[in-house]
Amino acid sequence: MMEVPPEIMQALIEIGFTKYETLTYWTLLVYGPSTAKEISEKSGIPYNRVYDTISSLKRRGFVTEINGNPKIYAPYSPRIAFFRFKKELDDIMKKLEIELKNVKKEEQRPAIWRSHDFEEALEMFRETLESARREVIVVTPSEFFEDIEGDLKEVLERNVTLSLYIDKVPDLSGLIGRGNLFVRQFHKLNHLVGMADGKEVAMIQNVTFRPSQPPSFRSTYREIVFSQYSLILEIFKEATLEVEDISNPQDIRFFAVFHAADLVKRHLHKTPIFAEISARKVGSGEMEKLYGSVVGYTLSFQRGTNNVHVETDRGIVKIGGMFAVIEDYESTDLKLIMG
Amino acid sequence: MMEVPPEIMQALIEIGFTKYETLTYWTLLVYGPSTAKEISEKSGIPYNRVYDTISSLKRRGFVTEINGNPKIYAPYSPRIAFFRFKKELDDIMKKLEIELKNVKKEEQRPAIWRSHDFEEALEMFRETLESARREVIVVTPSEFFEDIEGDLKEVLERNVTLSLYIDKVPDLSGLIGRGNLFVRQFHKLNHLVGMADGKEVAMIQNVTFRPSQPPSFRSTYREIVFSQYSLILEIFKEATLEVEDISNPQDIRFFAVFHAADLVKRHLHKTPIFAEISARKVGSGEMEKLYGSVVGYTLSFQRGTNNVHVETDRGIVKIGGMFAVIEDYESTDLKLIMG
Repeated sequence: MMEVPPEIMQALIEIGFTKYETLTYWTLLVYGPSTAKEISEKSGIPYNRVYDTISSLKRRGFVTEINGNPKIYAPYSPRIAFFRFKKELDDIMKKLEIELKNVKKEEQRPAIWRSHDFEEALEMFRETLESARREVIVVTPSEFFEDIEGDLKEVLERNVTLSLYIDKVPDLSGLIGRGNLFVRQFHKLNHLVGMADGKEVAMIQNVTFRPSQPPSFRSTYREIVFSQYSLILEIFKEATLEVEDISNPQDIRFFAVFHAADLVKRHLHKTPIFAEISARKVGSGEMEKLYGSVVGYTLSFQRGTNNVHVETDRGIVKIGGMFAVIEDYESTDLKLIMG
Repeated sequence: MMEVPPEIMQALIEIGFTKYETLTYWTLLVYGPSTAKEISEKSGIPYNRVYDTISSLKRRGFVTEINGNPKIYAPYSPRIAFFRFKKELDDIMKKLEIELKNVKKEEQRPAIWRSHDFEEALEMFRETLESARREVIVVTPSEFFEDIEGDLKEVLERNVTLSLYIDKVPDLSGLIGRGNLFVRQFHKLNHLVGMADGKEVAMIQNVTFRPSQPPSFRSTYREIVFSQYSLILEIFKEATLEVEDISNPQDIRFFAVFHAADLVKRHLHKTPIFAEISARKVGSGEMEKLYGSVVGYTLSFQRGTNNVHVETDRGIVKIGGMFAVIEDYESTDLKLIMG
């Protein structure tokens, strides 16, 4: 029997090949296009088993059949065969995602997924951005802006607010006019941070230097999200707003109350602002929907307090952000309507 | 027992998952991070089988374990899990290619591989280009030049001659000075043709229009290679040489004798040209190595004859191209040395 290098045999079996399939594909690669009889002779596979092996390899897109008498079986090169296999995986992945949408439970236990592969970590970052429905906060070194520009554009096109922190304001022509965009400049951080709706965060360390194996993670742990939220709040304090592009003033979404308060600070003196807020009542812990005019804000860095004041039918209430204690409500779901 | 959509179950089993693995991964996706006990309860998998299922899913990069008491198992999203799987396939593919190099038989039966997928066909085209050791002929519509420019650059960097046919001379700054390049302009053909060493050819139809499912093929059948060779010869007759960049005059390789004859025609009156040729003697069919000064050429479109005349130690012989009949030798392996 022909020998397949053990490592190859093991790897192919791992991805769903039978021993006969592996042996047949390898034999065809080594000897080139062959008849069933030749395959049997060269591989040692019983002749009566060659046909079903071949037909399964054909179905997988690893072998093609050339008509003739006898028929010739030609292997697709590993490059083409695995190119097809990867396409098949993409199809399966998409099917999985579609099927999951209907049955996935909303409330899932939080977790952390770590990675040391740059490309994989970047996929995790993208996944985090795509999960957002309200606001995405991205902290990026300017050298990395181009790599994620397309992802940021998609965020805006879903009408999710983009709050971008960057050390140098880049060419924003690809992002302007597409949604609600706030760009703030601050001293440089070499890491890439993406936070979505206060629910999940992704981080890649030292992205400036494009390491191949940067420590990275995505997490839905509330504690970890909050620790990054605190980091971003510190950055916010030192940052200057350089670009504000409100292309959708009727639907300005935030999860970060300090960003909402900052907008209120800049615009309330000249424009009426209305708010729709989902909030948890501090104390009782009950979720409520609040509607009303924004009448004020607090942005005190010294006391570490940030909130917005909303006049509801139950009077003026203060809405704080994640883990709010001194306010009436805690919220990560604010919609402001301007003008 | 939890139900996995049958299509998903079947697809995952096809790519090497067991039923329990599929069930466990699906359960984790639906319910989110869970303990072994919860997995068993929700999926219906016997508790004593959960651990080895989980450990195999961990090895495959589909599940991560979070320390605690009890341990929590979190699924990687399909996006990340399949991203990893695809990387693994790339690794296996590379291993296969490396292992194959040592054992692959040189003389393989010819075949044809057809494709109706644009990206896959483009991979086949690239594969053909990469197989070349002497000369690559590429016919491309100018709209498509940019997509293959990187591949053409690689051809030149391996010191393989590039004979490019195109309807408009593009910006060649990425190719100039890298090897031996000949660019000819001709009326437009919407197809992409790549031919390597007269041994294999790849073709994608209607590439100008970027169809998603263009009829395409790669073939090593001598008849098919020759039919495309004839097409290229017709194109050659109508084409005008626009750019000639001989960066490596000591090693100008051709498989197309009409290209060699064309070079001889342009340069022999001002520069001595020496030739090293592997050729098959017409009549006997024996392979020979020929060395000598080039002393003339024939390029007669009317008679359909093209050859080069070389003064060897056995006298002046005529070297024709593929399927040469009236010459002394047939060759697809010519090396010219100028100056």
